Amino acid sequence: MQPDLSGLTELEVNLATRTSLGDALTRSARMFGARTAIADRGRSVTYAELDRAAESVAGALLDAGLARQQPVAMLMGNSWQFVATYFACAKAGLVAMPVNVVLAPEDIAWILNDSGTTTIVADAAFGPLLDKILPGLDSVTSVVLVGAEPAATVGGLDARSWEDLAARGTSGPVEVLVEDRDTAQCLYTSGTTSRPKGVLASHTAVFVAGLTNALMQGGSWGGDHATLVNVLPMFHTTGLNTLVLPTLMIGGTVVLPGPFDPGAVLDAIESHRATHVMFLPIMYRALLGAQAATARDLSSVRLCIYAMAPMPGELLDQVDEAFPNAAVILGSGQTEVVPATVLQWPEHRHTKANSWGPPVPTVEVQIMDGAGALLPAGESGEIVYRGPHVSSGYWNNADANRAAFAHGWFHSGDVGHLDEDGVVWFTDRLKDIIKSGGENVSSVEVERVVAAAPGVQECSVVGLPDDRWGEAVCAVVVATDADIAPAELEAQVIAHAKLHLAGFKVPKRVIVLDALPKTATGKARKHELRADLSR
Amino acid sequence: MQPDLSGLTELEVNLATRTSLGDALTRSARMFGARTAIADRGRSVTYAELDRAAESVAGALLDAGLARQQPVAMLMGNSWQFVATYFACAKAGLVAMPVNVVLAPEDIAWILNDSGTTTIVADAAFGPLLDKILPGLDSVTSVVLVGAEPAATVGGLDARSWEDLAARGTSGPVEVLVEDRDTAQCLYTSGTTSRPKGVLASHTAVFVAGLTNALMQGGSWGGDHATLVNVLPMFHTTGLNTLVLPTLMIGGTVVLPGPFDPGAVLDAIESHRATHVMFLPIMYRALLGAQAATARDLSSVRLCIYAMAPMPGELLDQVDEAFPNAAVILGSGQTEVVPATVLQWPEHRHTKANSWGPPVPTVEVQIMDGAGALLPAGESGEIVYRGPHVSSGYWNNADANRAAFAHGWFHSGDVGHLDEDGVVWFTDRLKDIIKSGGENVSSVEVERVVAAAPGVQECSVVGLPDDRWGEAVCAVVVATDADIAPAELEAQVIAHAKLHLAGFKVPKRVIVLDALPKTATGKARKHELRADLSR
Repeated sequence: MQPDLSGLTELEVNLATRTSLGDALTRSARMFGARTAIADRGRSVTYAELDRAAESVAGALLDAGLARQQPVAMLMGNSWQFVATYFACAKAGLVAMPVNVVLAPEDIAWILNDSGTTTIVADAAFGPLLDKILPGLDSVTSVVLVGAEPAATVGGLDARSWEDLAARGTSGPVEVLVEDRDTAQCLYTSGTTSRPKGVLASHTAVFVAGLTNALMQGGSWGGDHATLVNVLPMFHTTGLNTLVLPTLMIGGTVVLPGPFDPGAVLDAIESHRATHVMFLPIMYRALLGAQAATARDLSSVRLCIYAMAPMPGELLDQVDEAFPNAAVILGSGQTEVVPATVLQWPEHRHTKANSWGPPVPTVEVQIMDGAGALLPAGESGEIVYRGPHVSSGYWNNADANRAAFAHGWFHSGDVGHLDEDGVVWFTDRLKDIIKSGGENVSSVEVERVVAAAPGVQECSVVGLPDDRWGEAVCAVVVATDADIAPAELEAQVIAHAKLHLAGFKVPKRVIVLDALPKTATGKARKHELRADLSR
Repeated sequence: MQPDLSGLTELEVNLATRTSLGDALTRSARMFGARTAIADRGRSVTYAELDRAAESVAGALLDAGLARQQPVAMLMGNSWQFVATYFACAKAGLVAMPVNVVLAPEDIAWILNDSGTTTIVADAAFGPLLDKILPGLDSVTSVVLVGAEPAATVGGLDARSWEDLAARGTSGPVEVLVEDRDTAQCLYTSGTTSRPKGVLASHTAVFVAGLTNALMQGGSWGGDHATLVNVLPMFHTTGLNTLVLPTLMIGGTVVLPGPFDPGAVLDAIESHRATHVMFLPIMYRALLGAQAATARDLSSVRLCIYAMAPMPGELLDQVDEAFPNAAVILGSGQTEVVPATVLQWPEHRHTKANSWGPPVPTVEVQIMDGAGALLPAGESGEIVYRGPHVSSGYWNNADANRAAFAHGWFHSGDVGHLDEDGVVWFTDRLKDIIKSGGENVSSVEVERVVAAAPGVQECSVVGLPDDRWGEAVCAVVVATDADIAPAELEAQVIAHAKLHLAGFKVPKRVIVLDALPKTATGKARKHELRADLSR
């Protein structure tokens, strides 16, 4: 049963019935025009201003000739202009493509090339980076700079001023066809292979994830509004899809205090009466130190999420104490399943603190064996997902998609089990990713670089538990020359890695062994290495 | 940017990423299998039982040859079997079509015919109704009865036993292609014309409405679960889409105390520690009386929604007092915009009690003039809607769809304005519907019947304000014979109407005038009639 819509244009029906992220900002701005949408360091941006800027930039991007579903690369730190640009893309039916700006320049160049990017919106601070990579990128024809000098040029192109685009105005809202399953965002993740993969998420996926996160975070639409203090990078799905977008979808306020500074964060929580926050464990530790030095009123916070890794019990207790009215729980997920995929319940906080918690209401989690069979509670296998906020697939990578969706489930690459309460217990990674300081590091990529360092005969790279980083990238190497001093070999490896890898991928430790433990087929026994070295 | 999914089946990707109502029950059942999903009078049905029954009935419907997107008519009162059948359709990719069982038999027959229904699931109590209408319906080939005697027949067909279908089991979950914009439900509404119209809602529409309602009702997913006591009929969108489905999507408990009985409802609220309820104003009045007679503990209720019409201030105050911990607010909407479209905020409860409140976060409301232009705050015009839970259109009715979606907005047929706070104030109906006791009555349809009554020369039917019904259907008639006693003419009109109309459409009052006030073009001035007679 489908309706007969003859006599109507496709756009008329689409405008009235669609699931579109751009419309979410329209609605919040209509209800809360005068309210602060984003407090970006000193600057308060109202919903009306944010929406006006987004509409204006959307119109400018379309006028410049961008066509439906083309990507707009965003090289931007956290700012209100980031958010306005993201929503501009959503309103215009373009794909917002925030790029991880801490990646190595050659990775960023590779991403721009793989995605066929023609248009880049960048903070002026990334001008030197663009000068370096743009000459090798023929597809890029347009750069818009935020905060640039007048008549700036970058990489041989005349840059347009973001501020000019945002202020030019429109004759009315941008109303173009945006279908529910059009791609809303593409986030490249440095995954398990040597090259980043573009994870595509539809408007429906991001929208449903947003509503779900708002529900899980105890949000409401009305006078009693949500206030988020966010320091996590918005070029990652956690900052963007778990935190910032859900808050804006229900008319809340997003506070961006700038690069992580414990004192500034605590001041922002106190002065804005923040209701929910999310930090990495190492950030919580720093916040506790700053709070011990100068106590702020943190009583407004009702939810503290921590990410990426369980926290030591004594640290959890201290966070409990510092945020007297907050539930302190772990949120987990991955770029491919717009998070939070799983979120602890407050009642599991003490009994199952080392678990990931249960899935959110819009995600089903199962455990699958290598042959595609689902396993009962207690049995270990790959964690697989289903639900409306699962990614629609990887860009330009049919092989990865075939593996990801085999048997009708999204394959996470994580290994774990479910308990009788449906709680997810993560135990290991099927593929070889190290999660360090909130970033994913492919051990394969680091191994390739380390193996090429002078004095290294062979190597294996593993993540070892680390209070500061969650996991520390650790290179286990065998020397070509048995007489070389371990400290000297370590220095050589680090120096070489720094030349060829982004900073966060450079090994934190180098351990020299006489030989690597190996499987019968000659592969390093990483599980054994990790166990031995974690002791 | 869309992913290359070559090498995968359409079903594999669909299962992993879709927005499907059937999956929502699957997820709740996996997390809360042992929890009571529905307390149906004396019977507690767990999530595991409900899901198993839904899967089993889904498999049986598919095995019987029903094809994707065919309707399954449901002639059922509120029961756990209703819910299981609804989810069975969702899982099987069929269209659940709950029919308003208080409509006149000829309207029900018309609906079954218009929808091309082949399969009916009915309570055994509706056997006599089916005996009456099935002989005239060639398309119906299969009837499933709930609670029937063995080997029952109905309308000349051998009925299958619902209990047998629900108990037959499956070899695994039903996994068929269900796309986000497939139709999930069709609810016929007796609208503005003489014939009911089938309102189609997609899986996305019902799903997003469900999440939104859960958020607005303060629901959470976890230990602190929602408990709804529901007496509103589930064949209407309010009971189904605003109340029951959202509660089940987040693992809450739905209590069905049976036909409205004030004492039984209060007992259910107390014994189940209900968290949210929704009633018509006349029901609240009855509840207050029963509570005055025997006080129950109603402290668990945090939200009391009332529907369809503002409540008198003194009644509101009494409800406030009876439910000491609850916000008491008005919810409004219509079948075509899976509600609640607009919901008062608690902070408007005293300052804007006669408003509808603001739209929910997933609906945009504007006011439009007759030429399709949007009007500023304060100006009156037709209330129009946009958002992901707007209906995808009317079944088999291109004319209605053209009117409904003109200018890219859904046309409500209601007249009102927005104030500076974005709050919706309803003032009148553009089309001629009377909202009486929670049912929509088409005055045109009643006029056609009354005009044919003996002794009636001409007539006009209007809704007049009424404490009990919200609006009372009122027939204003001019007699053919000036000498007839008004009481006699009234009796004749009522008797005739009872023969040809469903009970709720029969005029509550008949007023005899010498002449009707008319426009220049000869149409009755209903606005004037209502104003004169309401004094």
